[in-house]
Parts: sequence; C-alpha cells; structure tokens
Amino acid sequence: MKLGTLKDGTRDGRLVVVSRDLTGAVAAGPIATLQQALEDWSAAAPQLEALYGELNAGTAAGTFAFDAARMHAPLPRAWQWLDASAFHSHGDLLEKVFGLEPPPEKRSVPLMYQGAGDDFLGGHDDMPLPSDADGMDFEGAVGVVVDRVPMGTAVSAAGQHIRLILLVNAASLRVIAGREAKTGFGFLQSKPATSFAPVAVTPDELGPDGWRDGRVRRPIQVYWNGREFGHPDCGQMGFSFDELIAHAASTRNLGAGTIIGSGTISNANYREVGSCCIAERRGIEMEDFGKPRTDYMKFGDRVRIEMLDAQGQSIFGAIDQRVVQARLP
Amino acid sequence: MKLGTLKDGTRDGRLVVVSRDLTGAVAAGPIATLQQALEDWSAAAPQLEALYGELNAGTAAGTFAFDAARMHAPLPRAWQWLDASAFHSHGDLLEKVFGLEPPPEKRSVPLMYQGAGDDFLGGHDDMPLPSDADGMDFEGAVGVVVDRVPMGTAVSAAGQHIRLILLVNAASLRVIAGREAKTGFGFLQSKPATSFAPVAVTPDELGPDGWRDGRVRRPIQVYWNGREFGHPDCGQMGFSFDELIAHAASTRNLGAGTIIGSGTISNANYREVGSCCIAERRGIEMEDFGKPRTDYMKFGDRVRIEMLDAQGQSIFGAIDQRVVQARLP
Repeated sequence: MKLGTLKDGTRDGRLVVVSRDLTGAVAAGPIATLQQALEDWSAAAPQLEALYGELNAGTAAGTFAFDAARMHAPLPRAWQWLDASAFHSHGDLLEKVFGLEPPPEKRSVPLMYQGAGDDFLGGHDDMPLPSDADGMDFEGAVGVVVDRVPMGTAVSAAGQHIRLILLVNAASLRVIAGREAKTGFGFLQSKPATSFAPVAVTPDELGPDGWRDGRVRRPIQVYWNGREFGHPDCGQMGFSFDELIAHAASTRNLGAGTIIGSGTISNANYREVGSCCIAERRGIEMEDFGKPRTDYMKFGDRVRIEMLDAQGQSIFGAIDQRVVQARLP
Repeated sequence: MKLGTLKDGTRDGRLVVVSRDLTGAVAAGPIATLQQALEDWSAAAPQLEALYGELNAGTAAGTFAFDAARMHAPLPRAWQWLDASAFHSHGDLLEKVFGLEPPPEKRSVPLMYQGAGDDFLGGHDDMPLPSDADGMDFEGAVGVVVDRVPMGTAVSAAGQHIRLILLVNAASLRVIAGREAKTGFGFLQSKPATSFAPVAVTPDELGPDGWRDGRVRRPIQVYWNGREFGHPDCGQMGFSFDELIAHAASTRNLGAGTIIGSGTISNANYREVGSCCIAERRGIEMEDFGKPRTDYMKFGDRVRIEMLDAQGQSIFGAIDQRVVQARLP
C-alpha cells in the first residue's frame, strides 16, 4: 500500500492512504498519524490495507484528488534518522580523488551517521539554506522505515522490521562537510533538513523484481534544473538494509518510526549512468581533468528525484524542490 | 519550577510538576506530556508555574509522594539530541594521551555530534548493554532543552530559547568509539541509550549564582560503586549553551524539545577534583604512569550522578543506575 501525510496545520499532519496510481487519497480513519500506525503496526496495517483496497477499487468514501504539493514528508519528523553510505562506488571514488584514508573495515562495517529527524521537508517544499558558499548539494537515496527493533537484532531477523520504503533527498553542505569529517564527531552543520517524496510504500508495492535481498531493485532518476543528472540502479547497494538495521541496533534499541537511509545511490559505471549528487560528478571530473568543473547548486536551482516502476509509473511521487535563500532571524 | 515524567504505561509518560524539595508531585492537568508543553511553552509555562506554586505551598489537589524510581527521563524520547564536547580540559587531555590530531578551530567551533533521541533511560533504570568488552563508560554532563530555534539564530538570541536544564549520563562504549572516530561519520554504535536525572528544572531554579552566561555554575558529583569519582564545576564550560545552540542552528531549525548536552564535565585541575568519565581518568593515568590502570565498567557496576544546591539539596534528583547485560533477541 501507499501512505502519505497531508498538511493540515498540525505539526505531524494527517495520515492518508494514497491510491496505487497516485490520483486519489483518503484520510486513514481513526489512525491520525503515520507515527501512530508504526507504533502498533500489526493492528494498523490491516485497517490501512483494507482502505487501500477500497481506494484502488474506487469505493472508498471521502476520496479526494491527490496533490503532491499539499503533502508533508510521510513522517514530517522522525524520532530517529540514520543515513548510511552503502554504495561502494561512491565512497571509493571520493576517497581516491580527495586522498582520504579509507575507513577501517569499510567492506564489512557500514558507514552510518546519525542525522537530524526533527524537521523534515516535504517533497515539493522549498529547501531554505543559509549561504550559497556552503557547497549546496542534493543526494538521491532510498530509505526504509522500521517498527521497534530490539538491541542485538541479527541481520537475518532485521528485514521483518521493514514496514515502508521512502525516496530521499539527503541534502549536504559540502564545504562544511569537509571540515566536519576531520573532527571525528560526524556531520552536523553540513546536513541541513532532509526531504522525502510524498508517498511511502510497503515493500510489496515494488514487486518481487523491485525489492529483493533487502535492496530496492529499480533505478532512481535525478534531474537538476530540468536536465537528467543520473539514473543509477539502487540494486548495487554494498550493504543490504537488513545489514544496516542490524548495524544500527547492535548496542541499542531502535524506536518505532526510525528511518534508515542508503546514502547517495551510485553505480560502478558512473560515467554511463551518471550520479545522484554533485560531489560525485566533481570527483569524476577531478579524475578526468585534475579539477572539478561543475559548481554546486545556486539559489533558485531545482532538483527532481523520482523512481518509476516497470510500467513507467511513479512509485513514490516526485521530489521536486527549489533551493532558496533562508530568511534568517 | 521542576518538571518530570511519570511512568504510566504509555510511551511518553505523564507530565508531573515536582516540588522544589523533591518530596511531592502532581499531574500537570491538561498538559499531558513535556513535549506538548515545549511546543507551546508560552501558554503552558504560566499554568505549570501556578501549579508549582500551589504544590510548594502544600495546597495542590492530587499531590502524591515523589518517587524517583517511578520516573522516566523528563523527555522519554526527544525529536533531537545533540551532545557537545564543551570542556576544553577534557578534549585537550585525550588528544595528548591518544596522540590525536586536534580538531580544526577547536577553540572557536564547538565539537558536537548528533545523538539518538528515540530511546532514553530514566535516572533509576538499569542500563542494558551488550558486551563488557566494549569499554562501558559513564559520562556526567548537563544539558538544556530548547523550544523551537529558527535557523540562523545568533548567539545573543539563543539563550532565550533555553527552557529547562537537565542532568545527564551520556554513556559511551569506548572501544567502539575509537574505531568510529576514524570514519568521519561520528559516534553511533559507541553511543548507547542516554540517561537523565528524574527532574528537569527551569534556569531560575539554579539562582543567579547557579546559572550565568549560559553555563551551570555548580559542581556535579559522580560516584562509581559508592566511591566518589569526581566533582568538577560545570562553570568551566569552554563554550556556553548559547554558543552551542547557535552552532547547532546555523544551517537548520531546531525542533521544540531539542536537547543539547555539554559533554563530559571536566576541570583543568582534574587531578584535584576528579573526573566524570573513566576515559579521562585513564588519560591521566597514561600521563602519569604511561598506561591506564583503571578498567572500564563491569556488569553490575553502579553509577550515581547528582548536583546539589548551595544548601546541599539535590536539584534534579539523582541518576543512580546499574549496568546490566542486555538480554538480546
């Protein structure tokens, strides 16, 4: 099924069920928010699935036209947001061109940082940022939402906690990231608000060819100011989401509604399929020309991130955002 | 005033007002949770202050005996938990003994990592951890809770967002932290659940001598298995909380209920006043003897962290916890 959160003036919005073809939506009855559903998923999911069936059959009372611009992120805020860097071709390239020390055990221990979950952006919201000198970058990624994962959950048991899949724009400020990477304390000022496509989907919506071995098996599509920037396949993820969840839960419980991101999607043949962030293209340019030729985003730039199913239909609805100068207090 | 959260079987507990002497408490009327109060503080605070006055005067209906063991963390979960390392004597010592590269601009840019806010522990809860080979350490610290802080808030305007002060045990797994510090992605598996003393207090509760220039001006007291381990003064904080808030909000908004921690409290004369974490004592031993003599915690160990006012009364109630082997799935 497909779920989203309608902006209704409250902080956490109103949970709605969205039709498979993204044309209609209906309020999720007594289940007010997606967080509420995730905290009691076994009770909520059958009710939501039943409503989804009615909605797709055209028999759900109260159906209204789906409008992506009226949608929050599926979780307008999350009690936990963790983002990995699970695509090896991306990490390997950036290490090489920036002369970085490879992280210890990089093929056996996932790289993952704790991100800010308190203030997400909807997929059609403007992205307010303070300065265009910070190296404003987009990052096309996928993510999963889990229910409560107990500390010490094994990789083999982790997948059963995956309830929803998300499409993500994990924006970065690359100039600040360079400094923060040297502190050992991780990324903080370099990670502004993260944005999400308007609809979250259960794994079955991707079909057996689109979701396998804890990985999304579809290409992502990233456009920058209307021009295609990359369309790498998500299936080349070096660690599965099962492995990422077990990594995150090794020394603590993960609360229901925790989101875990894949990190920038990247394929080994990035010269053919393109990239999902500007930093990677700049890395390729450094390899090819000795220095980057592509600048980071300017205010007014647009980013569009989408994923289509085998029939060419949008799965999550598009992320389609404009970067704007933040109005500071 | 003093506020706490009673365990009542719900995920976020029940907000209670606690008497100044920590003997009585009363449910906070229509304001169900502390998060709810923080999201509309200007409306909630006068109601809570009025109730606090009645409680201290002995006239509040429904008063019951305060029992620290029945208390959650004041926020059982937070939409954002950020922890700094704001005591220079601590960082300088650990850099020296471990031969670490000093972080860039360490005296002008605070060190701060994004922590997990989804699953806090109450001050009298056991701390379940997976392995005593991970270097289990306590960290005595203070923290502030802010209401919503807009992106770009200046240091001079940051202090007005501080609504509550907390006493913190920001436990660490030092063996894992050593590996994670090398990844650039920050601390994740090395930071298990953080614990909080049962009562949060408004800054005025510390008095003009106890809260000044965005710093708590009282010593913390840390006991390990009943023996005093350290009592450094919190006033030697190298960055004020105002500076930490402005740092955190420079590229994003901070949601209401964000908690910002000071990091391990430490004084330059740590040989006299002792330490608030085992890692610092081990650093002193490396300096003195060439190698550490004190092992990290074992299962069954107890940690007690408290702060007393000028009259010797506990301000926040004590953190008093036992480290136990987690029962893994």
